[in-house]
Amino acid sequence: MERIEQHIAAGGRQEVWRHHATSLNCDMNVAVYLPPQAEDGPVPVIYFLSGLTCTEQNFITKAGAQAFAAQHGVAIVAPDTSPRGTNVADDPAYDMGQGAGFYLNATQAPWATHFQMYDYITNELPALIEAHFPVSNARSIMGHSMGGHGALVIALRNPGRYKAVSAFSPIVAPSQVPWGEKAFTGYLGPDRSAWAAYDATALLADATERLPVLIDQGSADDFLESQLKPDVFVAEAERHSHPVTLRMQPGYDHSYYFISSFIGDHIAHHAAALKGA
Amino acid sequence: MERIEQHIAAGGRQEVWRHHATSLNCDMNVAVYLPPQAEDGPVPVIYFLSGLTCTEQNFITKAGAQAFAAQHGVAIVAPDTSPRGTNVADDPAYDMGQGAGFYLNATQAPWATHFQMYDYITNELPALIEAHFPVSNARSIMGHSMGGHGALVIALRNPGRYKAVSAFSPIVAPSQVPWGEKAFTGYLGPDRSAWAAYDATALLADATERLPVLIDQGSADDFLESQLKPDVFVAEAERHSHPVTLRMQPGYDHSYYFISSFIGDHIAHHAAALKGA
Repeated sequence: MERIEQHIAAGGRQEVWRHHATSLNCDMNVAVYLPPQAEDGPVPVIYFLSGLTCTEQNFITKAGAQAFAAQHGVAIVAPDTSPRGTNVADDPAYDMGQGAGFYLNATQAPWATHFQMYDYITNELPALIEAHFPVSNARSIMGHSMGGHGALVIALRNPGRYKAVSAFSPIVAPSQVPWGEKAFTGYLGPDRSAWAAYDATALLADATERLPVLIDQGSADDFLESQLKPDVFVAEAERHSHPVTLRMQPGYDHSYYFISSFIGDHIAHHAAALKGA
Repeated sequence: MERIEQHIAAGGRQEVWRHHATSLNCDMNVAVYLPPQAEDGPVPVIYFLSGLTCTEQNFITKAGAQAFAAQHGVAIVAPDTSPRGTNVADDPAYDMGQGAGFYLNATQAPWATHFQMYDYITNELPALIEAHFPVSNARSIMGHSMGGHGALVIALRNPGRYKAVSAFSPIVAPSQVPWGEKAFTGYLGPDRSAWAAYDATALLADATERLPVLIDQGSADDFLESQLKPDVFVAEAERHSHPVTLRMQPGYDHSYYFISSFIGDHIAHHAAALKGA
């Protein structure tokens, strides 16, 4: 691993590392924030998954998370949103290919060679982080938009692995909205039976763990009605007695101004679960 | 004025406006954050001046200032750092021309036509802001790097106009460092006697108001020894009994990670002065 950025922030260290990801068959950047408490011993880790078009930079420069991570003594790992590189398949659209990995394992050409983000985020990255940084194996996961979809899917499919899960403006039912239908058709093929494994709403029926889900959603989000549809998830969760708190935040949009306004609540929620662990 | 961006942030409104600036002879963007308290009546205003290469976007997306502005009930105005446009003179270097206005009134060709940032920030912009937004005439000013230079110069030259002044990593003695020597030679000409009006250290001797100056400076800032030299300012301030607090922050660099780590302190300092006014 090569450290390519290092800054002091809120008394801790905001770093960006570059490493070869075996599961993705390419080099990847990953941002790691270590709070001051990490100087004295292992700290829990929150994974933050970003949305369409983002890299590892958006969250660390715009969310204002470091002050809260320092306050609660938690690390935050923010990976990139897809494999990258000139040898990696891409698409000119913003919602397919590089910057749009959708946190799944692609099965279709030309994507399957590199687009294995589910394996990367779920297995390879935590192993790497826990081997190289002063962190414990207490993990939680959150994300925004496409990354909220990733966080919910990964938490629901891996009972016992995460102590908390939350999302800002998540794509909760990708099989039912244009972003998800396009991406899943491309990455997984037209057979919809393969899609359910990456659809948080569809996964609720078989969830064996009742990990509470916290969702914040802006009421003025341009994508609310067309792509996000949190009510679909809430209704299905109620059917399966899965605890969900959906907070509709009046006037907020899909931007990092929304995330920065509520990231403190999310980190506090995660820290309480991680430390009670 | 045309509003080109609007987001809810920390319960208030982060907006970006576009307007024709008479003093600069071009259209300009300016960011305005209005805290929730502005719904109920005029609030004080902090002006934030950004550094080299920045636009009005850097501070509003990266500093995390909105939560503190909302907490204290102050507006924040973040202008661009120079005139802009295809008809505006420019230079390929990052430290001259567009993005590098140095908050002065240029006297030399080809710059003098548009590069009148001192007049814009000191006169035109406050008049515009006070005419169009729910703000009082209680003003303060802060900035980063080149913008810290601007904030110190403008506060020192306009006694009674600002209730507080502070800076992150400011260029305190531009006449004595490469960034300032290059810019002042280009904008003001080689006669150094014209430079003193835009040099905070040189202005201390004739300052008629003892407005306390708060400076935060990272000890690991790559520009500390070559361009910033806060000790030069502190020594001259001591000679003139001008109150300065210089806080050397160990390990911090020149980035927005530094600003976001201490912006809460600066806004609290300004708010106390603005509300005591």
